[in-house]
Amino acid sequence: MTTMTDFSRTIAAIATPPGKGGVAVIRISGADAFRVADKCFLPAYGEEPLSKRPPRSAVRGDILMDGEKIDDGLAFCFPAPHSYTGENTVEISCHGGLLITRTVLEAVLAAGASLAEAGEFTRRAYLNGTLTLTEAEAIGNLLEATNLSQIRLASRESRNRLSRTLAELHDEIVLLVSTLYANIDYPEEDLADLTNEELTARLSALSERMEALRKTYRTGRTIAAGVSTVICGRPNVGKSSLYNLLCCEDVAIVTEIAGTTRDLLERTVSLGDIPLRLCDTAGLRDTDDRVEQIGVERTRARIEESELVLAVFDSSVPLTEEDRRLIASLRGASAAVIAVLNKTDLGQADMTEVYAAFPHVVSLSAKEGNSGALAETVADLFTDGNIRVGQDAILFGVRQYAAFSRALELVNSTLSALREGIPADVAASELELALGALSESDGRAVSEEIVDSIFSHFCIGK
Amino acid sequence: MTTMTDFSRTIAAIATPPGKGGVAVIRISGADAFRVADKCFLPAYGEEPLSKRPPRSAVRGDILMDGEKIDDGLAFCFPAPHSYTGENTVEISCHGGLLITRTVLEAVLAAGASLAEAGEFTRRAYLNGTLTLTEAEAIGNLLEATNLSQIRLASRESRNRLSRTLAELHDEIVLLVSTLYANIDYPEEDLADLTNEELTARLSALSERMEALRKTYRTGRTIAAGVSTVICGRPNVGKSSLYNLLCCEDVAIVTEIAGTTRDLLERTVSLGDIPLRLCDTAGLRDTDDRVEQIGVERTRARIEESELVLAVFDSSVPLTEEDRRLIASLRGASAAVIAVLNKTDLGQADMTEVYAAFPHVVSLSAKEGNSGALAETVADLFTDGNIRVGQDAILFGVRQYAAFSRALELVNSTLSALREGIPADVAASELELALGALSESDGRAVSEEIVDSIFSHFCIGK
Repeated sequence: MTTMTDFSRTIAAIATPPGKGGVAVIRISGADAFRVADKCFLPAYGEEPLSKRPPRSAVRGDILMDGEKIDDGLAFCFPAPHSYTGENTVEISCHGGLLITRTVLEAVLAAGASLAEAGEFTRRAYLNGTLTLTEAEAIGNLLEATNLSQIRLASRESRNRLSRTLAELHDEIVLLVSTLYANIDYPEEDLADLTNEELTARLSALSERMEALRKTYRTGRTIAAGVSTVICGRPNVGKSSLYNLLCCEDVAIVTEIAGTTRDLLERTVSLGDIPLRLCDTAGLRDTDDRVEQIGVERTRARIEESELVLAVFDSSVPLTEEDRRLIASLRGASAAVIAVLNKTDLGQADMTEVYAAFPHVVSLSAKEGNSGALAETVADLFTDGNIRVGQDAILFGVRQYAAFSRALELVNSTLSALREGIPADVAASELELALGALSESDGRAVSEEIVDSIFSHFCIGK
Repeated sequence: MTTMTDFSRTIAAIATPPGKGGVAVIRISGADAFRVADKCFLPAYGEEPLSKRPPRSAVRGDILMDGEKIDDGLAFCFPAPHSYTGENTVEISCHGGLLITRTVLEAVLAAGASLAEAGEFTRRAYLNGTLTLTEAEAIGNLLEATNLSQIRLASRESRNRLSRTLAELHDEIVLLVSTLYANIDYPEEDLADLTNEELTARLSALSERMEALRKTYRTGRTIAAGVSTVICGRPNVGKSSLYNLLCCEDVAIVTEIAGTTRDLLERTVSLGDIPLRLCDTAGLRDTDDRVEQIGVERTRARIEESELVLAVFDSSVPLTEEDRRLIASLRGASAAVIAVLNKTDLGQADMTEVYAAFPHVVSLSAKEGNSGALAETVADLFTDGNIRVGQDAILFGVRQYAAFSRALELVNSTLSALREGIPADVAASELELALGALSESDGRAVSEEIVDSIFSHFCIGK
């Protein structure tokens, strides 16, 4: 694997969020980190320069720009390899004003550092071997987490377990490939560790184990990426109340704060452990008008873009023609549909048609505010209840899943071919391809483009 | 001085700005800081708990909530008294996602800390004697700084020098008061260090020194608070171009980002070293309409609220009736007025009336973009060129200035009284009042209300 990263640069960036706070941290990483820091940080009380201080120690001092004291703060020293990046690292903690933080960064750049690119610290950590790509991706997810289950999924324990599981699978394939080659090279000598039958049995067990891991992606993807959801229904069935209920029970953070374009169009709420991405909120809010205006066609287009439809009905009054049109439009939808019978507090009309049309029906009173049954239904539809998020190895990245699925397909095709009696050398080379795909899944053999794409999602300072 | 602060609480808050970044810092301070941290931070590799680690050292580990690992990060240990607050302090550095940061804070609170109030860390630093109130105020200014001169004014060097100068003045008054009392108690014994003549001379020198410091407030206030400024002029003279010129040359940060109500109504730009608070930007932008609609009265009201008026004229064409109405409306304005002769690139009409009406006239081309002469004129009007910001002791807080002026008045009245031959005991008690006012100016003897008011301006986590 080649890389564009120029390790001769010593990089620096504001590592803390932009804005005003009590403290901010400027991170400096690279071979020259201590030399740079010594030029712009003068330890107080005649203490030794940073380059001579013990590892992982903090010292108070003045921050200098062209010799002028602009702030005072703390510097933390992390000599290579015991740092986040694996390189010499100094972290300067200064007062957390907008301009003062930027000025301290300028002082660090004036002292010889280059401004870090987005994700460059984590990228260096990966390139220096202190993080696997899988771990780096998980850290990216952790930063974006909007509910606790996402934090659990991306926690170090969880990401270590996935890395370990992928490494075990990798080792097993390596063993099987080398056995196949041994069988080819010395077919008569019985040097191979495994007989053909044993080999087939182990490959079959490997396939089953991989299939089990592959299945975790459904849960992992749901937790990590959320479920794109649309609420629909005729006017006055309580769509807004349901929307408010989902938002109010939101212990997560509304992601439009983050300010990316995508976030502006979506509001992420948590229903139980599952983040729901309510798409096109502005549109949802005036669904009433739109439904009247553009009718069933528009509803269908929206539904086809989403993974979950919450079709809301007022269960206190008989169904109307509009309700029936919605039921008809949802027939054969590719998205999962849950019928929500709202206003249970106001009485109970005949909802037989709804029960007949939809496999999943939940009764609730959005006003009285209990979304527990809805949360359970959504969890049943989008996750596997046997998987313990934060404890089990779970696949959750698209890239990871695609490479892993390819590896599994190659294992399965090798297995079929062996059972059909193809030559061992053909089987071995097929299985070697699986090895490549698995390495790619774990981020150990990926193209520069993929690495670029992963780190481009990080913010500057990470 | 009494205080409401309950030191039995161990407090915690997110110390870094809110938002998403690479890292965030949760600060824990108080007697129990280490006990709290030990409950929610598990050092890696079987290292010792935080309470047993050497001062100012960092350790990597897992962050726990109810025993569950939710993140990994670094903990920094600062045993009392060598910390920002002067108390036991632990700073936990975690991944800087919005929710992950909040969750780590929750873990710390669950481990026994209380959520810190806004400014509570700095308030404790003040109450524990690690910071004077003057220094604390300067730190508040540093966090709000929008240009380099504000940073210089609030730098540690600058705030230390002011504190030292105030302490020297205080010591001198203490000496003079004690001398006066000695003269009273032992008038015959000649025990006093100073004769009456010497005493008057020293009091006079003190008064002069204090007057010199008092005068620095004009500069300090201008740099710290900025100059409220209004741009006016008839349509098409180039008000918007001037506005854009001021904003473009703005190396400062536009303060509406900070999001307080005040900021939303003002845009702070830097003209040279001086922050200009352009008031009511929305209003300024449609001044054309307003001037037409509401006329001279409205202009006058605006002008009376501001400290600086930039009256813009198009110097390439003869003055119009509207220009003359503006000139008339500015006659006798209490604000400083600078006439800006714009569009020098387009030719030169007769501007005699402008030169006759205004003592300060600056010619420029807002389009060609040179605001140097305007910056010099503003600096001359609002600051003292002999004062070196960041190097000299400079008064800059309203509260500080008011108390200091009171102290100076009392020194002066004591001096006059002594010269008029009043009894030493009357003079001594007058001078003792000056001592109180000076202590108040330096924040050493202020009421609880004033302390509350100062720290209420800090953000949570500072």
